[in-house]
Amino acid sequence: MNLSEREKKQILESIRDIPDFPKPGIIFKDITTLLNNPKAFKILMDHLEEHYKDAGIDYIAGAESRGFIFGAPLADRLGAGFVPIRKPGKLPFTTIAEKYSLEYGFDEVEIHIDAFSGKPNPKVLFIDDLIATGGTANASINLIKKAGAASVDACFIINLAFLKGIERLSADTTVYSVLDI
Amino acid sequence: MNLSEREKKQILESIRDIPDFPKPGIIFKDITTLLNNPKAFKILMDHLEEHYKDAGIDYIAGAESRGFIFGAPLADRLGAGFVPIRKPGKLPFTTIAEKYSLEYGFDEVEIHIDAFSGKPNPKVLFIDDLIATGGTANASINLIKKAGAASVDACFIINLAFLKGIERLSADTTVYSVLDI
Repeated sequence: MNLSEREKKQILESIRDIPDFPKPGIIFKDITTLLNNPKAFKILMDHLEEHYKDAGIDYIAGAESRGFIFGAPLADRLGAGFVPIRKPGKLPFTTIAEKYSLEYGFDEVEIHIDAFSGKPNPKVLFIDDLIATGGTANASINLIKKAGAASVDACFIINLAFLKGIERLSADTTVYSVLDI
Repeated sequence: MNLSEREKKQILESIRDIPDFPKPGIIFKDITTLLNNPKAFKILMDHLEEHYKDAGIDYIAGAESRGFIFGAPLADRLGAGFVPIRKPGKLPFTTIAEKYSLEYGFDEVEIHIDAFSGKPNPKVLFIDDLIATGGTANASINLIKKAGAASVDACFIINLAFLKGIERLSADTTVYSVLDI
């Protein structure tokens, strides 16, 4: 089931543009105005549930920290486990880490080594609020595979399509983005 | 409706103790093993929904970032708005900030100034995974009031009761903790 044009418009209009954040020249997509609008948030969550309900997702892995806000309710609706992917030093148990390059320097994400140990051959859905150049998403998907996922899907609420981040993700990842901007 | 002893035990046993994290002498309550256990996570979310479904909650405010993981699904279930309370510099729009003291030094939390502007006299539920000495919770509740909440409830999955954090919260806050340890 696809979003109707009217529903898509309701979600899109609930997202606020913040010019020059976090640095000059960037227009930041502020999803807090979607989250505190129960009508728009429900349209989105109903749609995500519908989209993934028969996909056999065992775990949803969300990227710190806006990915948590969409991933946890979707895991709750689908009856899947939720797994946080975090910045270094935040997860208390043994972790696997993956570095990725930024414009200047490096960043790193971590996952618990036993995050998916509750199911054999787990199918994992990675979720984040937005994909830009795809650095975090690519590193997170590698991490999910290293932690033992049999297959990985990826979902983004917003895809900044002109940055071609989705093209950077490995070809065996099934990707869905709700809004292409 | 209260949790049965059996349900309480299922939630409690799904939480992992990590000794000496983040520093020596502290036993960290690792809730990632609750989150990636769909059965335990569902028992908890069903219980929270039942507990708050007739409480007239307009918004749920979650503390970065484990509060997001419990707050967003509860907002989704209750049809409430979700509002993130974040570390300094993370929220893109105009914020209100509140400082609080740590063992050594200070920390700070922020909220968007218009977070609750969608409803008149909003009733807000603050949620976090754990209350220890209550510093973050106290600062967050002050912030929620400054942002215009008419009343504030607070909910914690785990209360480290020996640290008496709940006693530090203002007397007009209705507090519920799922597990007192």
